[in-house]
Amino acid sequence: MLPLPVMDAAIERALLEDLASGDVTTEAIVPKTARGLGRAVAKQPLVVCGGDVFARVFYKLDASIRVERRIAEGSRAESGDVLWIVEGATGKILSGERTALNFAQRMSGIATLAARFVAAVPPGSSLAIVDTRKTTPGLRALERYAVRTGGAKNHRNDLGSMILVKDNHVAAAGGVRAAVELARARACHALRIEVEVTSFEELDEALDAHADVVMLDNFRNEDVANAVARAKGRAIVEVSGGITLERIPELARLGVDVVSVGALTHSAPAADISLELERLG
Amino acid sequence: MLPLPVMDAAIERALLEDLASGDVTTEAIVPKTARGLGRAVAKQPLVVCGGDVFARVFYKLDASIRVERRIAEGSRAESGDVLWIVEGATGKILSGERTALNFAQRMSGIATLAARFVAAVPPGSSLAIVDTRKTTPGLRALERYAVRTGGAKNHRNDLGSMILVKDNHVAAAGGVRAAVELARARACHALRIEVEVTSFEELDEALDAHADVVMLDNFRNEDVANAVARAKGRAIVEVSGGITLERIPELARLGVDVVSVGALTHSAPAADISLELERLG
Amino acid sequence: MLPLPVMDAAIERALLEDLASGDVTTEAIVPKTARGLGRAVAKQPLVVCGGDVFARVFYKLDASIRVERRIAEGSRAESGDVLWIVEGATGKILSGERTALNFAQRMSGIATLAARFVAAVPPGSSLAIVDTRKTTPGLRALERYAVRTGGAKNHRNDLGSMILVKDNHVAAAGGVRAAVELARARACHALRIEVEVTSFEELDEALDAHADVVMLDNFRNEDVANAVARAKGRAIVEVSGGITLERIPELARLGVDVVSVGALTHSAPAADISLELERLG
Amino acid sequence: MLPLPVMDAAIERALLEDLASGDVTTEAIVPKTARGLGRAVAKQPLVVCGGDVFARVFYKLDASIRVERRIAEGSRAESGDVLWIVEGATGKILSGERTALNFAQRMSGIATLAARFVAAVPPGSSLAIVDTRKTTPGLRALERYAVRTGGAKNHRNDLGSMILVKDNHVAAAGGVRAAVELARARACHALRIEVEVTSFEELDEALDAHADVVMLDNFRNEDVANAVARAKGRAIVEVSGGITLERIPELARLGVDVVSVGALTHSAPAADISLELERLG
Amino acid sequence: MLPLPVMDAAIERALLEDLASGDVTTEAIVPKTARGLGRAVAKQPLVVCGGDVFARVFYKLDASIRVERRIAEGSRAESGDVLWIVEGATGKILSGERTALNFAQRMSGIATLAARFVAAVPPGSSLAIVDTRKTTPGLRALERYAVRTGGAKNHRNDLGSMILVKDNHVAAAGGVRAAVELARARACHALRIEVEVTSFEELDEALDAHADVVMLDNFRNEDVANAVARAKGRAIVEVSGGITLERIPELARLGVDVVSVGALTHSAPAADISLELERLG
Amino acid sequence: MLPLPVMDAAIERALLEDLASGDVTTEAIVPKTARGLGRAVAKQPLVVCGGDVFARVFYKLDASIRVERRIAEGSRAESGDVLWIVEGATGKILSGERTALNFAQRMSGIATLAARFVAAVPPGSSLAIVDTRKTTPGLRALERYAVRTGGAKNHRNDLGSMILVKDNHVAAAGGVRAAVELARARACHALRIEVEVTSFEELDEALDAHADVVMLDNFRNEDVANAVARAKGRAIVEVSGGITLERIPELARLGVDVVSVGALTHSAPAADISLELERLG
Repeated sequence: MLPLPVMDAAIERALLEDLASGDVTTEAIVPKTARGLGRAVAKQPLVVCGGDVFARVFYKLDASIRVERRIAEGSRAESGDVLWIVEGATGKILSGERTALNFAQRMSGIATLAARFVAAVPPGSSLAIVDTRKTTPGLRALERYAVRTGGAKNHRNDLGSMILVKDNHVAAAGGVRAAVELARARACHALRIEVEVTSFEELDEALDAHADVVMLDNFRNEDVANAVARAKGRAIVEVSGGITLERIPELARLGVDVVSVGALTHSAPAADISLELERLG
Repeated sequence: MLPLPVMDAAIERALLEDLASGDVTTEAIVPKTARGLGRAVAKQPLVVCGGDVFARVFYKLDASIRVERRIAEGSRAESGDVLWIVEGATGKILSGERTALNFAQRMSGIATLAARFVAAVPPGSSLAIVDTRKTTPGLRALERYAVRTGGAKNHRNDLGSMILVKDNHVAAAGGVRAAVELARARACHALRIEVEVTSFEELDEALDAHADVVMLDNFRNEDVANAVARAKGRAIVEVSGGITLERIPELARLGVDVVSVGALTHSAPAADISLELERLG
Repeated sequence: MLPLPVMDAAIERALLEDLASGDVTTEAIVPKTARGLGRAVAKQPLVVCGGDVFARVFYKLDASIRVERRIAEGSRAESGDVLWIVEGATGKILSGERTALNFAQRMSGIATLAARFVAAVPPGSSLAIVDTRKTTPGLRALERYAVRTGGAKNHRNDLGSMILVKDNHVAAAGGVRAAVELARARACHALRIEVEVTSFEELDEALDAHADVVMLDNFRNEDVANAVARAKGRAIVEVSGGITLERIPELARLGVDVVSVGALTHSAPAADISLELERLG
Repeated sequence: MLPLPVMDAAIERALLEDLASGDVTTEAIVPKTARGLGRAVAKQPLVVCGGDVFARVFYKLDASIRVERRIAEGSRAESGDVLWIVEGATGKILSGERTALNFAQRMSGIATLAARFVAAVPPGSSLAIVDTRKTTPGLRALERYAVRTGGAKNHRNDLGSMILVKDNHVAAAGGVRAAVELARARACHALRIEVEVTSFEELDEALDAHADVVMLDNFRNEDVANAVARAKGRAIVEVSGGITLERIPELARLGVDVVSVGALTHSAPAADISLELERLG
Repeated sequence: MLPLPVMDAAIERALLEDLASGDVTTEAIVPKTARGLGRAVAKQPLVVCGGDVFARVFYKLDASIRVERRIAEGSRAESGDVLWIVEGATGKILSGERTALNFAQRMSGIATLAARFVAAVPPGSSLAIVDTRKTTPGLRALERYAVRTGGAKNHRNDLGSMILVKDNHVAAAGGVRAAVELARARACHALRIEVEVTSFEELDEALDAHADVVMLDNFRNEDVANAVARAKGRAIVEVSGGITLERIPELARLGVDVVSVGALTHSAPAADISLELERLG
Repeated sequence: MLPLPVMDAAIERALLEDLASGDVTTEAIVPKTARGLGRAVAKQPLVVCGGDVFARVFYKLDASIRVERRIAEGSRAESGDVLWIVEGATGKILSGERTALNFAQRMSGIATLAARFVAAVPPGSSLAIVDTRKTTPGLRALERYAVRTGGAKNHRNDLGSMILVKDNHVAAAGGVRAAVELARARACHALRIEVEVTSFEELDEALDAHADVVMLDNFRNEDVANAVARAKGRAIVEVSGGITLERIPELARLGVDVVSVGALTHSAPAADISLELERLG
């Protein structure tokens, strides 16, 4: 669920980026009366994401273009599957094609990578895979939506939506306990408090200070086990830092609650989707 | 060379995305008088890109923050190298850190991947590696700059800056020749005309119509050789579609002029850069 | 601490609102060489807020105007106190005066009202006074800052920064427990979960579902006491709905943790501040 | 009559402020198929204002939501009256509720206060109650509309839409007459000229200079009477500065033409309106 | 006097229009270290206008570029005169040149044309030449400033800054008197009321209704004389509609107060100014 | 073909410019129920341009207003011809009238002037008339569209869509050949390379360097003939600089390919179009 004004801001920017000086090829060659039907086809297995944005791009160019969703958001598609069908003025479809696909490929790429991480969680485990703030500047809302569409969850949205005490905050405050107390004293009661810890001492200090979440930064698996035991029933345990797909099952087995994966948004390859256009009448 | 207004538009958007509701952790914990010095350190070998944007992010939060460039744009850095040093109010550095790195990691990631493709071109070859319009919506100018910084070149910027006749244009016009003639008759003399061809018939038609560039779409290597021979001295030959690093040397050997690689921008993994902050006074 | 880009967006909008067609009076009458010194004077007792915004308004009109803060943000000022001094081109000071004061009067008005609520909390009590999302459209960040400046705290910033289950969410889910479970299953672990309850049954259900915060909606004082007892050690207790200054001491005595007051932002009268300008040379 | 582009700019800003990171509670809990009907109910006597903006907020989130106006703009509503009815997707109604009410409560609050001032004008008097430029930054057009809806009138919109000579302009010009002459010589003939006067000497000078309007700044009632007599038939007489409701009848009796009241916009408490939502099917 | 935020909005838009995809020629050819000095030279006699905008364009590209004004705003320049000198990085000067000149040529063009109309007013006459709302969309403030710089005056800025009753308003109200009475009853006392009249009957009706200004629409000179006589001492007389330079002296002689000339902004030819750049070191 | 988002950006700006403070006259006088029908009538012979923009202005104020095009874009209209008919709420038509006409008059003015230049090209000649980047800041896309509508063509859109080597680039590179080689080595293969030459030496150097286009800057006709002969079959020949209508036939006869005319956009007088409104019911 992406609010329309959030989507529109990104889409209008993208269309102006590609079309501020018009589409010279289409204007010169394609008759205004030509109508076409385009099929957005998966060229690889993927998790479908971005149908609303895909449709809205064309709507912004020509409100009479119709887009039909053939595969639901968050569903898997195989290579060759038709995801969406767009029908209307050929010229407008051609002018919007690249922008619509740029969004959809990026969003489906993220959803697909997120789904791979989620699939690596063993059955029965409650381990949650979450994203980070390492998103593309200007596209945070769309990328977080793609993460959710892939079955993973979001971490905090921005610097104002959670207290996350990192090493530099600890250093500034003179210790984990002092940092958490300052945060609790001054900040909003509506916000969870998470503390990034790099040692068992810091972990214990964070737990004693009643942190809601503790983030184990670059802990080895054996240390993770120990940390989970200490935190049991006292705080949510998040593991972060250089997480690979391979490590997920073991982290789940160790009882970790949350694993945050920056790569979901900063390094997901685009999903391969192409638009196959056919002439109508 | 990214014009300042182009940079600023992207940066302001990104800062509002992360800071619209403030930085609650820093505000609660870090004294306003605290000063710090941060080192942006490469955590992997990479091609440096985005120093101006990195510096400008902090400038936009606090004009008194100073950023020093230690390694020039486009240079290689090894793991552990310090790229840039930022010095000023600790709180402002912490608030800008993620946004600055999100830009720099993406830009350096693209530059690094571009440089790998360029490095795959054999010595003595004039083969150019170029990007495509498959860029991140809202960041086209920054990503194209990163491509150049990595030593590759840009393809057309947008739908108004070149005539690129694709299959659907050909279909609408009733043939390659007709399409090119329409383009030449109606469009701007200042624009090159490129034609995407999928067969030798189309290639010959495009050459006869005096296309400036012909794009061989998904040609096998043996067909590329043939096409290059036909186009010799008549048009620039571009190869496109599913290009991998491995194929570059052979395409260079065959005499291709240009290879366009969408992955440069749509699938470059972020370069790993982190900010290490130390307290001053 | 208001990030500069957040401030600037509001200020530029406000200046264009007042100056899009120029300042005809000043242009016709005031010589360009005239220089003046203006004193922003409190015309009533108030809590000072908005000094940075006040200064930035003039900076945006003329970067050479200097503003000196005489009383710190969050301090009390008495009627007649000089808050800030602005010095520079008379014409530019006159053009910016109203906009600068419109911000400062609103922000100081909110800070002053917030401080009155905070002052009503008896010594020794840990009761927190917080704002709501009932802010002026377009000025949320500035108004929340004013609330903090007055010594109160903020509630959640927006619909994405906390889970707040209200009656309509409960109805949609078919019960408090179901609603909280859906929220916990699908939403971000980084977010606190608050449940608005209207009866003891709902309260117990929310506590059993491990809500982080329970909001007692329009409870009478005797019911508040009972609710606080039930929630003790299990959840933060927030009281909301038609709160007046007079009720604060009793709510504090009853052990409530948080009282949210919409009036802090939606009905704070502007603080009376005027600019007294004197000619220089 | 608020032009649509003026409304939309404010609404889009407000929606992004609240929804940039989505509505996590609604997304987690409310089924997409749920439909609801909401009644905007007055919780106090008020003058209705903001129906178009209220409706447009929901339209911007979902063009299929329908809003019915039950009580016309500018009409009085009693506590319990239904002002507007909104019907459509429950999730979208919940996401827009706060933003829609924030506008409507502020606008109705201003209209209600304006109407109280207008009601204080004795029957038969032609005294006009007007607003000032002490409006909320970013919402001037909406607030001025609310003033009109309450039956009062607007003063000048901005620094470019009237010549208003204040004390500092007089000081810069070296006297009232000189200031008015400069204004008349240099400025637009389409603009009225108003002069703020603080003494009878200045008043006479303004009248002799053919000011269209004279503003009596903080005159006592007995002096107002004298001033009105002098200005009779020569200029419109406006009284300004610390005006309270109680003083209106006397000012009307004295023959004043216009009283400007900053409090109409800078200190009107929000009108209490709430949305009562019921499930449909 | 153009407020900085007004100037900046137009300039940023213009720079993005020309530079969103960079300056490929300059980037490829001009060394970053090259410094140059450019002289903006009049290639025709003109009235200088736009120096601030010219300078600000370069400032927005590179804050270290210096611009010196050699001839003051509103002064006449002869062909060959140097208006402004710009000095700094050659590449940045080249990138900004066209945008800076596009503003300056348009503004100087308008100022020059305005000055010609003003010069046609015979000595001793108080006839004012004014502009209209027939300005370039997006540049109204700049063009009105140019009109003033040329020595003419502005008419109303926008639809909210004066009441101007035209034929269609008269038709809607059922007569001139009714229209003026509605306007006076409902609108802001701060606004002048102007009535466009097409006959003596309408003129008399407008005068009787105490219009501040009457606009004679397409009156012949002999009728203008008659109208001026009737309006003497009762209203400002404006003549409008198809005004040419040649007609100005006669209109002045007839005692008209104001002549409005749409051509000042909608049809002023650009003034010829070019930038001559020389290398520095 | 102007993309909708490009049009909308310009239109929204223009409407806010004229309507930010409302339309006081219409609001006071015109009943909300009044409906009208307006005819946009040519008051001079012109080439019709801007129908889509004209219609969209009214759509943005009231989506229920209908606009009918009576004469197609690019067609000639005689004085008295009805171009477009607008029907709907009288108040909204009056509020949008000036903005709609400001666009249409400018666009038709440019189209009309472009058509005059095109008409001056003798039958049988392939000489193209093109515009320049001397466009109105903020309206480039609309003005380029108007040029095409008048039958002329566009030159490059912006600094990123062609390489155009001017004298200062040549100076920076140390010669024409060096400049072209730098451009070819570093810039995008998708871009044509044009070189401005001021002598036969430079012309030969540009041709030897395989420039795609050579621009003869201020060449006399006899030199043009010589230059055309040299460039025959090697490069497109463009003539630029102080071109008048009178010179077109001779330049065509000399075999020039392209003539660029800055006046098309910087000095086209507005076409005279007025809106005649009649009451409906």
